[in-house]
Amino acid sequence: MRTLYHLPLSPFSRKVRLALAEKRIPFDLRLERVWDRRPEFLALNPACTVPVLQDANGLVLADSNAICEYLDEAYPDLPLLGRTLAERAEVRRLVAWFDHKFQSEVTRNLLHERQMKRLLGRGNPDAGAIRAGYANLKPHLDYIGWLAETRAWLGGSSLSLADLAAAAHLSALDYIGDVDWSLNDGAKDWYARIKSRPAFRAILADRLPDLAPPAHYDDLDF
Amino acid sequence: MRTLYHLPLSPFSRKVRLALAEKRIPFDLRLERVWDRRPEFLALNPACTVPVLQDANGLVLADSNAICEYLDEAYPDLPLLGRTLAERAEVRRLVAWFDHKFQSEVTRNLLHERQMKRLLGRGNPDAGAIRAGYANLKPHLDYIGWLAETRAWLGGSSLSLADLAAAAHLSALDYIGDVDWSLNDGAKDWYARIKSRPAFRAILADRLPDLAPPAHYDDLDF
Repeated sequence: MRTLYHLPLSPFSRKVRLALAEKRIPFDLRLERVWDRRPEFLALNPACTVPVLQDANGLVLADSNAICEYLDEAYPDLPLLGRTLAERAEVRRLVAWFDHKFQSEVTRNLLHERQMKRLLGRGNPDAGAIRAGYANLKPHLDYIGWLAETRAWLGGSSLSLADLAAAAHLSALDYIGDVDWSLNDGAKDWYARIKSRPAFRAILADRLPDLAPPAHYDDLDF
Repeated sequence: MRTLYHLPLSPFSRKVRLALAEKRIPFDLRLERVWDRRPEFLALNPACTVPVLQDANGLVLADSNAICEYLDEAYPDLPLLGRTLAERAEVRRLVAWFDHKFQSEVTRNLLHERQMKRLLGRGNPDAGAIRAGYANLKPHLDYIGWLAETRAWLGGSSLSLADLAAAAHLSALDYIGDVDWSLNDGAKDWYARIKSRPAFRAILADRLPDLAPPAHYDDLDF
């Protein structure tokens, strides 16, 4: 069977879950507490990060970008990277935008400070980082809104990994109540569209044992 | 003509320069001081990072990963990502290892603290970060040495982007005199091999106006 090692609030894990679900590839989820540095997991991925995919053919893949590129090569139906060279370059540019720029400017400042530090007992949240995270969210939602209003989907005419990467980060932040959707209507409309897709259902059904999401989290008409 | 916007010590720019040179694709280099936030450059890449490639067909590509994936798709002779699904997954895993893990554990702690802060007038280097960077270099060189001794090249049987990503980071650090090659013989032997390739010549010939590299920097028998 195919197994995805993940953490529920990891945006990189969520991106791969969405990619697998959009491609209608069945998989089992396995929770991996990476901070335990389990030797069997280190043997699969010496970087000790999630997601890691063990495919049905036995191949083990680490790093969310390597996994997503592999999925589009190994399961080319329903391509998620675009078709032309220009489309693919734009999708990859935007995936990097969300996985690096949005990650370092928003996700890390909010998710890491407010959740991971508490979970791992690594001290109090840094109020300055949290303020920066909230301040940085607005221009990013504006950019998403602008993209969504000028194109059918963020990366171009089709749903792509650009949408999945953005939605993965935003859905993790939305779970901890950190996204003010009133900041940009275009971004909110785009998120409502992607949230309504069948591929999103499993993520919206996720619940952490010690933390409930806000009421709007799984509401498709939030 | 084909233009690569770059910074001389940016490992991500160096990786793309090496990929273009290995593929024998001619290009012009254009220095881009990203901190000036030049409007014409922001129009090419709103993330305002280097490298950015403007290809001869007019296509503009931002983000080093998007550029390298594009180069292997648009110029498939001399592939740099591997041929089989398993090879490609391993090359991409290692590129992420160097561009994210090595970058955050070593490159940022040394290159950013010792060079960029001075260049941009952003205060004094953080001694703790520099100590961490030097301490983290040893296990990374050991990993490179282990890979190089168990395989022909870091990613497998052929030279790949895994080698170019690793060499890009190490060559930038070597320029500022921050690599102690005595830490691992296997890593040193691998670097001597890649440094001797014709594709490396332009990088070894680079000189910053206000900073000379150590004598061994362009010595092929360092």
